[in-house]
Amino acid sequence: MSELRKEPIAQRWVVITQPEETSAQNGCPFCPGNEGETPPELYAVRGHGTEPNTPGWQLRIVPNKHPFLHPGGELNKRGFGISDVMNGIGAHEIVIETPEHAQHWATMPSAQLANVFSAYRERMLALREDARLKYIVVVKNHGTLAGRLSHPHSHVVAFPVVPKRIEEELSGTFEYYQFHERCIYCDMMREETGWHERLILETSGFLALAPFASRYPFEVWVIPKDHVPDFAQVEELALSDLARLMRQLFHALKKALDDPFYSVALHSTPLQERFQRQYHWHVEIRPRVAQATGFEWATGVFINPIPPEEAAVRLREALDS
Amino acid sequence: MSELRKEPIAQRWVVITQPEETSAQNGCPFCPGNEGETPPELYAVRGHGTEPNTPGWQLRIVPNKHPFLHPGGELNKRGFGISDVMNGIGAHEIVIETPEHAQHWATMPSAQLANVFSAYRERMLALREDARLKYIVVVKNHGTLAGRLSHPHSHVVAFPVVPKRIEEELSGTFEYYQFHERCIYCDMMREETGWHERLILETSGFLALAPFASRYPFEVWVIPKDHVPDFAQVEELALSDLARLMRQLFHALKKALDDPFYSVALHSTPLQERFQRQYHWHVEIRPRVAQATGFEWATGVFINPIPPEEAAVRLREALDS
Repeated sequence: MSELRKEPIAQRWVVITQPEETSAQNGCPFCPGNEGETPPELYAVRGHGTEPNTPGWQLRIVPNKHPFLHPGGELNKRGFGISDVMNGIGAHEIVIETPEHAQHWATMPSAQLANVFSAYRERMLALREDARLKYIVVVKNHGTLAGRLSHPHSHVVAFPVVPKRIEEELSGTFEYYQFHERCIYCDMMREETGWHERLILETSGFLALAPFASRYPFEVWVIPKDHVPDFAQVEELALSDLARLMRQLFHALKKALDDPFYSVALHSTPLQERFQRQYHWHVEIRPRVAQATGFEWATGVFINPIPPEEAAVRLREALDS
Repeated sequence: MSELRKEPIAQRWVVITQPEETSAQNGCPFCPGNEGETPPELYAVRGHGTEPNTPGWQLRIVPNKHPFLHPGGELNKRGFGISDVMNGIGAHEIVIETPEHAQHWATMPSAQLANVFSAYRERMLALREDARLKYIVVVKNHGTLAGRLSHPHSHVVAFPVVPKRIEEELSGTFEYYQFHERCIYCDMMREETGWHERLILETSGFLALAPFASRYPFEVWVIPKDHVPDFAQVEELALSDLARLMRQLFHALKKALDDPFYSVALHSTPLQERFQRQYHWHVEIRPRVAQATGFEWATGVFINPIPPEEAAVRLREALDS
């Protein structure tokens, strides 16, 4: 069982876990025919008349075989000297996005990508029934630096705490709203639409932009034009629009940066009423093109050698080609 | 010229810089005989009668040839829509720690390592004369992931803002002090000394421990037993003690983890009177033994697969062997 420990100075939660032995696997556990290699599925998009945990699916969601947060047990919040501790309760699920082992968001049919976003939403709706859980994040890593398995998949992780990065976004959003009675993400989109130079792609419902203070080279934020705090409230039509934008965007990233490793995070509002109004769900994308320099770790100040204006130019060019 | 931009939601400064072309170099620019490859030295420990910028030195400090913050010019703080911007004013200096290209903190004579810490202190004292500067950090990266040059060196960076990571430590330290009238680092040392299981090494003046909520596998904090906020106030004798501890600690890290890449950060109080009392300077060490998983970036929650109690056991064993 893992443990959540709170660093008492910067007040940041850490999951302390013991890596479990990975048994030698025969081929990819996420490919059709190997359904027995994963825990039983929680959700699937599958052909009429096919049985759970057998081939015939377009998408499966299964519990992670080696989760760092587990659904069973009690939180047992307690002090430990000056620190705080609780058991590693939560959920850690894997979305197997497609039966095709070598598929990529740059080439996946947008209907399939819409299935993926729709699956995220379904799990968000299901997991929030558990009152112990406070926040759900979706994270996708592409490339060997970030994970051992190359079959397209993403993680749905439910935490019993609101993570620090999200607390920061919430408090920034809330402060701005208190002062201006407006959403900071909505204002940012309005500004960037006027300036053009950091815009990458626009659809009827979404904007993809290189944020003015990009922390990483070629960082991209995808923001819905409608002010909706909660991803789980998004409608099917908007998810199809998002899927089309993402496919184009990942095509451009793949082309401009020679198929980079990347991470994607879906940020939505915590599972609590009080934050609903000010927050604005969005997707953050971090291509992993630069090496760490130690300064970010040492100071929290990021050093970015590619101005976002240049990143936007290069991604727009790759879109058109 | 680089630019500091503030992300208006999480309120985090980013340095947007343009990488300058690195000219092809003949050999290591930090080795004796190649003094002309670096900008003129700002400080040196050198043999009697030797000329600046010629061989005969034990340690040199030079401006970084490709700094991301520059000493010349005006800050020119300004707004840009909802964001804040200022010019990339500051300092970015390189401490060339030894003339020996293949030296390592695990084997460097402790008198030489004391020279290194003494040099950090000298530059901190010199740079604080510039009223535009608010914070000085020392960062050392060992290993190719973190830098192109393998000759032992470290970075002294002076910022015109207090970095976010330091703000977090300051506010945590301050809150704890307000509540308890005690220093949280002092209390942490008292607790850990009682518990033993996360202690790695102790000298008359310093404690090296694996913090209870370690973010990274084998993370180590080195904390002075005396409550001193400002590294620049530390005396020569304490620096010699620190050097002896560091040499032993890096020997253990090198041995236990097979010469890992690592980063070191020296955290001291900001260059401002109001923070002096509560803060407690210290050194943080992050061996780079695990791959990034994307979760830290997505949420600020760190996933650490090596409990600090286990890290401490393995490092203590390596110390004794």
